[in-house]
Amino acid sequence: MNYRLIANLIGRILIVEAAFMLPALIISLHCGEHESAVAFVQSIILIIAVGAAMNFLIKPKRKGYYARDGFVTVGMAWIAVSAFGALPMWMSGAIPSYIDSFFETVSGFTTTGSTILPDIEILPRGVLYWRSFTHWLGGMGVLVFLLAIGPRRTDGESMHVLRAESPGPSVGKLVPRMQQSASILYKIYVGMTVLQVVLLLLGGMPAFDAVTITFGTAGTGGFAITNDSLAAYSTYCQAVTTVFMIAFGVNFSLFYLLLIGDFMTVFRNEELRAYLGIIAAAVIAIAIDIHSMYDTAFEAVHHSAFQVASIISTTGFATVDFNLWPQFSRVTLFLLMFIGAMAGSTGGGLKIVRVSLIMKAVRRSIATILHPNSVKLIHMDGEQVDEEVVNGVKEYVLIYILILAGSVLLISLDPFVDFEATMTSVVTCLNNVGPGLGIVGPVSNFSQFSDFSKIVLAIDMLLGRLEMFPILILAVPSAWKK
Amino acid sequence: MNYRLIANLIGRILIVEAAFMLPALIISLHCGEHESAVAFVQSIILIIAVGAAMNFLIKPKRKGYYARDGFVTVGMAWIAVSAFGALPMWMSGAIPSYIDSFFETVSGFTTTGSTILPDIEILPRGVLYWRSFTHWLGGMGVLVFLLAIGPRRTDGESMHVLRAESPGPSVGKLVPRMQQSASILYKIYVGMTVLQVVLLLLGGMPAFDAVTITFGTAGTGGFAITNDSLAAYSTYCQAVTTVFMIAFGVNFSLFYLLLIGDFMTVFRNEELRAYLGIIAAAVIAIAIDIHSMYDTAFEAVHHSAFQVASIISTTGFATVDFNLWPQFSRVTLFLLMFIGAMAGSTGGGLKIVRVSLIMKAVRRSIATILHPNSVKLIHMDGEQVDEEVVNGVKEYVLIYILILAGSVLLISLDPFVDFEATMTSVVTCLNNVGPGLGIVGPVSNFSQFSDFSKIVLAIDMLLGRLEMFPILILAVPSAWKK
Repeated sequence: MNYRLIANLIGRILIVEAAFMLPALIISLHCGEHESAVAFVQSIILIIAVGAAMNFLIKPKRKGYYARDGFVTVGMAWIAVSAFGALPMWMSGAIPSYIDSFFETVSGFTTTGSTILPDIEILPRGVLYWRSFTHWLGGMGVLVFLLAIGPRRTDGESMHVLRAESPGPSVGKLVPRMQQSASILYKIYVGMTVLQVVLLLLGGMPAFDAVTITFGTAGTGGFAITNDSLAAYSTYCQAVTTVFMIAFGVNFSLFYLLLIGDFMTVFRNEELRAYLGIIAAAVIAIAIDIHSMYDTAFEAVHHSAFQVASIISTTGFATVDFNLWPQFSRVTLFLLMFIGAMAGSTGGGLKIVRVSLIMKAVRRSIATILHPNSVKLIHMDGEQVDEEVVNGVKEYVLIYILILAGSVLLISLDPFVDFEATMTSVVTCLNNVGPGLGIVGPVSNFSQFSDFSKIVLAIDMLLGRLEMFPILILAVPSAWKK
Repeated sequence: MNYRLIANLIGRILIVEAAFMLPALIISLHCGEHESAVAFVQSIILIIAVGAAMNFLIKPKRKGYYARDGFVTVGMAWIAVSAFGALPMWMSGAIPSYIDSFFETVSGFTTTGSTILPDIEILPRGVLYWRSFTHWLGGMGVLVFLLAIGPRRTDGESMHVLRAESPGPSVGKLVPRMQQSASILYKIYVGMTVLQVVLLLLGGMPAFDAVTITFGTAGTGGFAITNDSLAAYSTYCQAVTTVFMIAFGVNFSLFYLLLIGDFMTVFRNEELRAYLGIIAAAVIAIAIDIHSMYDTAFEAVHHSAFQVASIISTTGFATVDFNLWPQFSRVTLFLLMFIGAMAGSTGGGLKIVRVSLIMKAVRRSIATILHPNSVKLIHMDGEQVDEEVVNGVKEYVLIYILILAGSVLLISLDPFVDFEATMTSVVTCLNNVGPGLGIVGPVSNFSQFSDFSKIVLAIDMLLGRLEMFPILILAVPSAWKK
């Protein structure tokens, strides 16, 4: 393990994080929020000091950087960025408990959007801005950003980091050089973000709201700046957000293909078709299930579409309290949490492509009983999928299930949490969605959990966002041997 | 597919089933239950007529009998045996609805033990006896029985049937001939059954209770003959049942090894060690969690041990209403439902060996990131496990998860069922346990479900007992092509 290079990289990321706190500091000053401004200044100085020490004092002695180094870098970097990113919330007094601040920041960076705040609206604007901005940063990945803007790196280094941070079973290169791919992805991300802000502004949304809501959408995060999430905004603004939640759940390489004019590949993409197909089916099923609760069919479809887009993209915004919907709609949303968005998007969950591959593998194993001598290969987008990838997906899902079961057991130690909240809090955190059902529903929050449960759920968020291995590997003793 | 041979075999099984109804008929006559007696006579005549027609009129034209024929035979046989086995309950008026009778009979044969009866105690004795006896028959397998007592068959035929009906990832032969293995297994089964009855009688339990409770224990079923399950019996009788529930969850080939004096192999058996280790850990954890609810530490350990044994062996008896226990104990029991007993036992669930193999595969995939060039094989009991078996286990668990998710969605259509009952009813039926949590808890029942839900849950029980494939294959259109 190349610890010196890992420490060096994490130092650099911390410096970048401190730089990203500057807009929040400016907002604090502009709004006359003195305590927040002081907290941001202190945090920035501290983070730069630590980051600079790690970056300038620890120099790599050798060049070797392998896949395992990539995983450890990503795992450690995300923990560090969350631990330091929590400082302004805590030091400003906006969130008095450090563990709560840490939970909230992990929830931000991992684009989960679960909150421990019973009242969001009393937060200072600077803190609110930083809280939403962590979604935007975490959505595309903090290390991908470093690659996109940082100095030229070897392709091996970039690849291992990208692979460890990017969601999905295989990392697609857009262009031959990994670093350039990262840069293209970030440009698309910025472009789509700007477009959503403009469209929300056109709908009359205040600028601060438009920017923060867009951060929450782009990262598929779900932090809002009001206690009722998006319920108070106009139908137009809700509809714009619906469309963008779905869009940010799409594999970004498809947007690149659209930009270079390769429409056929996009049109034929199996994962995209499955993603849009599941959305359409769920929207219709839920709209029928809830139609009697709303005055018009349009309203039922509108809220169904918003909620389905919000959950499958793992954003977590709400326009209504879907916890009050009939059981079928609630369970449908619960199951969509597991499926999640497309690989290579900012969304969480298992990812459509994994669910598709599992379905294909399962169908094959049933067919093998009927026709034992036929050798069947699994195809995706017309191409044969390597059996190693299929096996990796199977093992990923099984690890995921084991983590889920273990976390549920740990959360059940919390005496105040019922069965529904035990199950759905873990599922919503592990899939980076945000709200669950029952007492962790969309109009509720995670403040009633014990500190122990909050730490378990924060680890689940990191496991989910980084797709298990970068965090799991930190728990293996032999990863720490020289 | 050799349909003629399949029909012929199912005909024979039906005749055996009719013969097994005779003790229940005798009990009905002895207790003066005229309606039941008439229902049993009518059922026996009808079943023999149908069975004889299939067995004598449909003769196989060719010899070929492959794995797929084994699966279809087993799947169809279990559905037929359940459909006809439900007749006495329905025709006697004991359970007025045929769908309810079918649910109850499937629950019996699959050794689940979930009941739709709000009041069990009003049932006639003949019907109660038959209801419990289905557990005993289903525990070891109705087709294994046929092999054990039937005429000599080719080893291929026996093997395919045994493999399709027996729980666990691989079928162990005790002796070279499959049919003889089946016979040995049945002798052990009968021997242990007699032993438990004797021990319960020594504890002063009435003979009818001792026999029916033993049927429920031996099959790891869980039907009791009183509304409060085993709560009213003495601590001695409860403790005897605890020991036998654990014993019937052990792989029967280990008992054979004990009989022939091979103690070392039994002692070293990894699955047995894991099984007993999980039981010990769960008993201690739950006893600590519930200790304040009981007067003495002994009582807490006694009820914890009974409940853990009941759930992990997938029996489903109860001595107390564990639904009232703290959340941690409830969730622990819920998770034990998934794990289940050992392969090759009468218990359900995923089976310990599958969970162990999954853990080993997962540990390997994490280790591979750290040491990418090391090729690691998975071992069990000191022997290398074939990668095909490991892959089969992975796919089995994934199919299981998909079925679970689909069933939960279908049950959620039932308007009266809350989240906890939706989840736990499916989990308890798919794992052949019996009771769930909340409104399907141990002192409750499944009567509030719609007919549609009852059919879904009955299919789940069959899927669980027959380990998916024999039932799944019936849903594949190409299985029905000539």
